[in-house]
Amino acid sequence: MTHTAPLGVAVIGAGTMGADHVRRLDRAVAGARVAAVADLDADRARALADPVEGCAAHTDPEAAMAAPGVDAVLIASPGPAHEAALLAALDRGLPVLCEKPLTPDPEGALRVLAAERKLGGRRIQVGFMRRYDSEYAQLAALLASGELGRPLLLHCRHRNVSVHPYFTDASLINDSVAHEFDAARWLLGHEITAVQVFRPTPSAQAPEGLSDPQLVVFETDGGALVDVEIFANSGFGYQVQAEAVCERGTARIGDAHGLLVNAAGRWGGPVDQHYLTRFADAYDREVRAWVDATRRGEVTGADAWDGYAVAAACAAGTEAQRTGRRVAVDMVEKPRLYRD
Amino acid sequence: MTHTAPLGVAVIGAGTMGADHVRRLDRAVAGARVAAVADLDADRARALADPVEGCAAHTDPEAAMAAPGVDAVLIASPGPAHEAALLAALDRGLPVLCEKPLTPDPEGALRVLAAERKLGGRRIQVGFMRRYDSEYAQLAALLASGELGRPLLLHCRHRNVSVHPYFTDASLINDSVAHEFDAARWLLGHEITAVQVFRPTPSAQAPEGLSDPQLVVFETDGGALVDVEIFANSGFGYQVQAEAVCERGTARIGDAHGLLVNAAGRWGGPVDQHYLTRFADAYDREVRAWVDATRRGEVTGADAWDGYAVAAACAAGTEAQRTGRRVAVDMVEKPRLYRD
Amino acid sequence: MTHTAPLGVAVIGAGTMGADHVRRLDRAVAGARVAAVADLDADRARALADPVEGCAAHTDPEAAMAAPGVDAVLIASPGPAHEAALLAALDRGLPVLCEKPLTPDPEGALRVLAAERKLGGRRIQVGFMRRYDSEYAQLAALLASGELGRPLLLHCRHRNVSVHPYFTDASLINDSVAHEFDAARWLLGHEITAVQVFRPTPSAQAPEGLSDPQLVVFETDGGALVDVEIFANSGFGYQVQAEAVCERGTARIGDAHGLLVNAAGRWGGPVDQHYLTRFADAYDREVRAWVDATRRGEVTGADAWDGYAVAAACAAGTEAQRTGRRVAVDMVEKPRLYRD
Amino acid sequence: MTHTAPLGVAVIGAGTMGADHVRRLDRAVAGARVAAVADLDADRARALADPVEGCAAHTDPEAAMAAPGVDAVLIASPGPAHEAALLAALDRGLPVLCEKPLTPDPEGALRVLAAERKLGGRRIQVGFMRRYDSEYAQLAALLASGELGRPLLLHCRHRNVSVHPYFTDASLINDSVAHEFDAARWLLGHEITAVQVFRPTPSAQAPEGLSDPQLVVFETDGGALVDVEIFANSGFGYQVQAEAVCERGTARIGDAHGLLVNAAGRWGGPVDQHYLTRFADAYDREVRAWVDATRRGEVTGADAWDGYAVAAACAAGTEAQRTGRRVAVDMVEKPRLYRD
Repeated sequence: MTHTAPLGVAVIGAGTMGADHVRRLDRAVAGARVAAVADLDADRARALADPVEGCAAHTDPEAAMAAPGVDAVLIASPGPAHEAALLAALDRGLPVLCEKPLTPDPEGALRVLAAERKLGGRRIQVGFMRRYDSEYAQLAALLASGELGRPLLLHCRHRNVSVHPYFTDASLINDSVAHEFDAARWLLGHEITAVQVFRPTPSAQAPEGLSDPQLVVFETDGGALVDVEIFANSGFGYQVQAEAVCERGTARIGDAHGLLVNAAGRWGGPVDQHYLTRFADAYDREVRAWVDATRRGEVTGADAWDGYAVAAACAAGTEAQRTGRRVAVDMVEKPRLYRD
Repeated sequence: MTHTAPLGVAVIGAGTMGADHVRRLDRAVAGARVAAVADLDADRARALADPVEGCAAHTDPEAAMAAPGVDAVLIASPGPAHEAALLAALDRGLPVLCEKPLTPDPEGALRVLAAERKLGGRRIQVGFMRRYDSEYAQLAALLASGELGRPLLLHCRHRNVSVHPYFTDASLINDSVAHEFDAARWLLGHEITAVQVFRPTPSAQAPEGLSDPQLVVFETDGGALVDVEIFANSGFGYQVQAEAVCERGTARIGDAHGLLVNAAGRWGGPVDQHYLTRFADAYDREVRAWVDATRRGEVTGADAWDGYAVAAACAAGTEAQRTGRRVAVDMVEKPRLYRD
Repeated sequence: MTHTAPLGVAVIGAGTMGADHVRRLDRAVAGARVAAVADLDADRARALADPVEGCAAHTDPEAAMAAPGVDAVLIASPGPAHEAALLAALDRGLPVLCEKPLTPDPEGALRVLAAERKLGGRRIQVGFMRRYDSEYAQLAALLASGELGRPLLLHCRHRNVSVHPYFTDASLINDSVAHEFDAARWLLGHEITAVQVFRPTPSAQAPEGLSDPQLVVFETDGGALVDVEIFANSGFGYQVQAEAVCERGTARIGDAHGLLVNAAGRWGGPVDQHYLTRFADAYDREVRAWVDATRRGEVTGADAWDGYAVAAACAAGTEAQRTGRRVAVDMVEKPRLYRD
Repeated sequence: MTHTAPLGVAVIGAGTMGADHVRRLDRAVAGARVAAVADLDADRARALADPVEGCAAHTDPEAAMAAPGVDAVLIASPGPAHEAALLAALDRGLPVLCEKPLTPDPEGALRVLAAERKLGGRRIQVGFMRRYDSEYAQLAALLASGELGRPLLLHCRHRNVSVHPYFTDASLINDSVAHEFDAARWLLGHEITAVQVFRPTPSAQAPEGLSDPQLVVFETDGGALVDVEIFANSGFGYQVQAEAVCERGTARIGDAHGLLVNAAGRWGGPVDQHYLTRFADAYDREVRAWVDATRRGEVTGADAWDGYAVAAACAAGTEAQRTGRRVAVDMVEKPRLYRD
């Protein structure tokens, strides 16, 4: 079971997500330690690194990757910085857990794929944490079992309480629906072939200029159809639901509740307010699984191909948004490295 | 409260629906009696009429309407026979409860509207029974209250266990989605402006030639968007669900259950298997409300305009199905008689 | 199906319950009409009777029973007045639907049983409306099917929003738990043999002098055990729940909901606030079934024996309350008339 | 955050529970390592210890505690062996996580308390893992907030699929209801003062000689009343539920579900089948919290006093079972060490 030394991780990016991962690696994951932290903001890097024994603070991601005791890299910097960090890590042959997106654009993702292929083996896992959520895992297992027959439709709901004022229509696709693109690919085992976006009259609660909510319909090469309600300013909570409609039944996740209260004329309970709460256990499982697999020299989660495929679907999705038309997803052929 | 004589009703059509209504008028509705039954099949008409005191059996609908003691007409014959029966009833000035559809086509519906307008007052109620379902009523009341803000999206699921082999793609729209067309119009208070239909690879459980399930997306002149999963061969039950997504929250109906069983490793309960079971109380309330309103000389349910509007949406829906394109709904201006 | 003349009913008692039944007989029940109303308060009787065609108002119950066109009696007067009204009705051979309790004490109930036995046939139905609730009916059917094996335990919850200040500890048993006594007897098919009452420190929301809530545990001659939480000042709603624990599973009713709302950080829905709302459909079904059975000369609901058995259990329950001890239920042997 | 060396743990007992904890300490808990394993069965000890780097196998618990690198002890041996192991650990001043029961009898527990008091500080945590379950934590937080007023009643259900044939009536109390004794004490913040046990006719599925299910009612010194259904052979699943009835509302846990399936005429989902599944996350959190607190020199979970109080309640419970009477719980005064 046990291995000699814990996996030394360089965490790139000391924002909310990076800080959450540092705490997780330090306190909640066996077999790992945070060896270095990098952030452009030196104070922020130091504040995060200092309490961790033997953890160095850097402003340069590459310096952090080169720090002593670094065996792997966790990238939690802003999306536009991912490509450079990924290429630097691959250059060193370091395994990587990269928060989504792999890269903001399919072209960058292709360059990352090319670099990884040169190494002759997979190094990169992309942080699609829903694959580690216990409800998603149950749904995936049920679909894989074939008990309900083939999936025909997948209905998804993705609701946030509210979003920052700089959130754009494109962010709805790239930051939010990206999760459904990956989850649908993973649950259905098929690639996305075309996307169409419907926009009702926006909510008065949406920031000026944001068309919120939207309904995204996409097709897959397996014939199943997916519809996603993305509602970034739902006002009431963070809620992620999915219902797979199969040939002999349907299966739904996302209604789960722990506590049922009867009070003041109503029954019910609290809705999660944030993805870090809703998916707290999933993040823990994801990082634990990544550390374990990395120590065995494997990649078991979403890989770079998955990151590329989602980037391609996002590109089609934002074009569908702009044009109001059905847009086909443009993808290269899947390299042998990513077929199993 | 009480009125001198019960309302004498001629029931046109002695099939499943007609028989159900005769039993209802006879046993479950105060203030009404079945005065006549008509069916092309004389034996069937007689079998239904005989046990009811003072009820005559006819093969000709017009003869039934002309029978002594007939004050009102309930049309439960096949859709293609509705127009003639409606015009005959209007000709006699008799109030009508007409099972859906009003007519199978918008043109026939327009002829009925014209005949009704000549009478200078509304006589016709269309049997959209969901308006009398207690869950739909709660949802409608909540939306009308404005408590959750404006409705933006309406997600609908309409699932049957299975359908007859002669069910066609067009039946999915005309027989099934027709209910969602009316329910959405009623819940949202807006007309449907365009329809688009998506077809995943059909279920292996669907009869040869039927593309089942389908996803129907339609727009309304209020800006809200509606999506309907219609799945005629779901295999597991009759299930009708609706979720309204509003500016400050969402509201869902159709999950209701009475009995929760823990047994054999599972928790859960039975799903209704038939619309006559699921909507039994709604049918009772509908006919009771129609009898009461009719005795007061009013029409309070879905009227002939609603029947026409649904026929127009169905015409667009079946064209959208055939073409795979977004099809605008073509409607005449609403006559003054139907505005309130 | 249909019968010549509607059943003429004399309604005794023009309070909330009586008024509700008059409206029901007049508007929601086929085959019946209100022929007379009696109330000690002449104005109240008249106010209720006047709008109903052909309905006379009386202050004397017996005069109402003797009014022309009276075929049956519905007793909705206060409990202490039931015995006299029942005996008067039996004296006339009139069938009766008597709101619970049959009589407030087992002795009175025995006198009623004796009078009914003299007639040689059952005339009396007691208004235990839960037997007509669709959820209770499903639970009863499931237990009767034997699918889950023999029932071993029955957990009951009975919660009101609040009660009148004159509500006493004894009222908790006689007015509230009386329903569970009957429901348990009916669901389990066994008589109650002993009762014990537990009293936690009362809620601060309970009126001075009322020990609220209480936990009532009772035994049955079939070996199953029943526990009832009675909470008359729950504050939040009217809620009735029951869970049968059987050899191969459990079955629960009372969680049902129609509308699920997500708003303001919470999911959930409204709780019923009053028994007339929660059991509205049950009351309708009860009176409809009574009218139908009465017209056929039958008693199909809870009969006078059931009323007596509940009175005996209530007597034991209130003594158990006073003494804190387990009290055996004292009952006469079941007369042949009530065995079937 | 981080500490120099991981906590070296000696695990006493290599059965199901011990093996589960070794895996947990090795793979799922940061900051700990398994330094030694002891089991009377040398092969079993070795099989568990061998794969863990630097972990020694012993047959003598004291030898394991004396092994190099042991900083703390986790006792997972059978209950009767706990007292000796606890005293040995205290003798060495080692902090302990002791699986429940602390000791099988109150007398043994008092001896452990005495030994711990001699050390002048708390060393022992008892493995009441429900305190670390997220649903219990939510319920506890809600009760502590006072939002619903004071708790008045607590309804508990504790159901297993089935139990070993050597399970006795006393086991129902000592092995199963022991959890509810602790949970109720923890949720309500009060000690148990008296216990009464009701026994319905046993299920035919219960092993010969076991009176299963039973209903245990107990009182607390805060005035709240608790009822527990213990059903060791429910047949359908492992299910733990609790509903607190408070002055202004109720709160229930244990209905949670992740996956809702519609299939074959039913809606619903799977019920957990085992406590190691149902409480997997709770065990992880418990051991993580114990490791963290131990490294800080604290005891934050259930302490030895809690273990003693539960032993005292169990003694009353088994006597109540035997006698059918209400039995007062006999407890010593709480030593200052265990008051906060």
